[in-house]
Amino acid sequence: MMNKGVLAVVSGFSGAGKGTLMKALLEQYDNYALSISATTRSPRPGEEDGRDYFFVSRERFEEMIEAGQLIEYAQYVKNYYGTPREYVTSQMEAGKDVILEIEIQGALNIKRQFPQALLLFVMPPSAAELRHRLTSRGTEPEEVIENRLKRALEEAEGIENYDYILINDKVEECVRQMHQLIQDHHSRTCNQEDFIKKMRTELQQINQ
Amino acid sequence: MMNKGVLAVVSGFSGAGKGTLMKALLEQYDNYALSISATTRSPRPGEEDGRDYFFVSRERFEEMIEAGQLIEYAQYVKNYYGTPREYVTSQMEAGKDVILEIEIQGALNIKRQFPQALLLFVMPPSAAELRHRLTSRGTEPEEVIENRLKRALEEAEGIENYDYILINDKVEECVRQMHQLIQDHHSRTCNQEDFIKKMRTELQQINQ
Repeated sequence: MMNKGVLAVVSGFSGAGKGTLMKALLEQYDNYALSISATTRSPRPGEEDGRDYFFVSRERFEEMIEAGQLIEYAQYVKNYYGTPREYVTSQMEAGKDVILEIEIQGALNIKRQFPQALLLFVMPPSAAELRHRLTSRGTEPEEVIENRLKRALEEAEGIENYDYILINDKVEECVRQMHQLIQDHHSRTCNQEDFIKKMRTELQQINQ
Repeated sequence: MMNKGVLAVVSGFSGAGKGTLMKALLEQYDNYALSISATTRSPRPGEEDGRDYFFVSRERFEEMIEAGQLIEYAQYVKNYYGTPREYVTSQMEAGKDVILEIEIQGALNIKRQFPQALLLFVMPPSAAELRHRLTSRGTEPEEVIENRLKRALEEAEGIENYDYILINDKVEECVRQMHQLIQDHHSRTCNQEDFIKKMRTELQQINQ
């Protein structure tokens, strides 16, 4: 029986180390496909179309909304961000586990459309460590760091909507655990519907 | 931060190999405590009080019900069966992961009282394999085997109430997966309330 892929949504505080985790996960295991968001904002230096985002015009984005081509979308600071449906569903059909890195509101929208999705929230081991990580990048002004810490406090209010908390203390260990949680999700009852159906049919036959 | 143990409920068709799995799990890992049921039925040859069951009188059992000393109980064929509360809660407090091997109705009762419990359902890879396992024991008359297959068909109706399906093809592999699922359950959001609370407090302080 061919197993379909599962859908894993990864959120977490800015500074929790999501980017590093995702990179390591995709490098170490070959069963994952990372969903790429579409956006109407302009590319920043170093960003590539089709790698970091699909950069599209406002008109194109609104066409995609109309045509139901996005699983979820939201608007931030006058720009649209959304998840193209076709890539997610085709990769899952092909047996790939699809990873979506997305903030909390998007995650909840995904969950409404894909109740069988796995929602993971990445956190540093402490708030002090979060501040340390944000500061030690050395690239951002104090004001930006303060804003991220404030945002983390807001995001912390919605954590109960997630299935699992991943504490990113050591990256190696956290990647291994993320992989394990996603692989275990294949055994989740909602992802075993085909097997359950097969077993019921067989039991009916054997009981005749 | 001291981690409390989790509560794992294991059900499955008679013949799926639950007994072998539980034995292997308890032998291979030392963080588990197996909950023992209380019953009013008489011990069968080879059964030991305090190992297989706590064998109690009907009067004692009804006292335990009255005093709220059972997490769940049910009556089958004139006998009571129930799960003593004190052992389960004290072992979890001590950090042990408590395993409860119980049939579906009991499992649902547990879930109502411990919504954070993990519900696992063990199945053989096919109905033919189930019949093979039941038959190859060579100890039971055909009628008993037919009844077990009939009961499996009934139980299959309630599988969606469980969190995970464990397909017991190779015991080694299935034990490893059972251990993994139970350990992952510690990271489940509902089992990380203390950590989330700590993080929120820290974030509030850091944002002041």
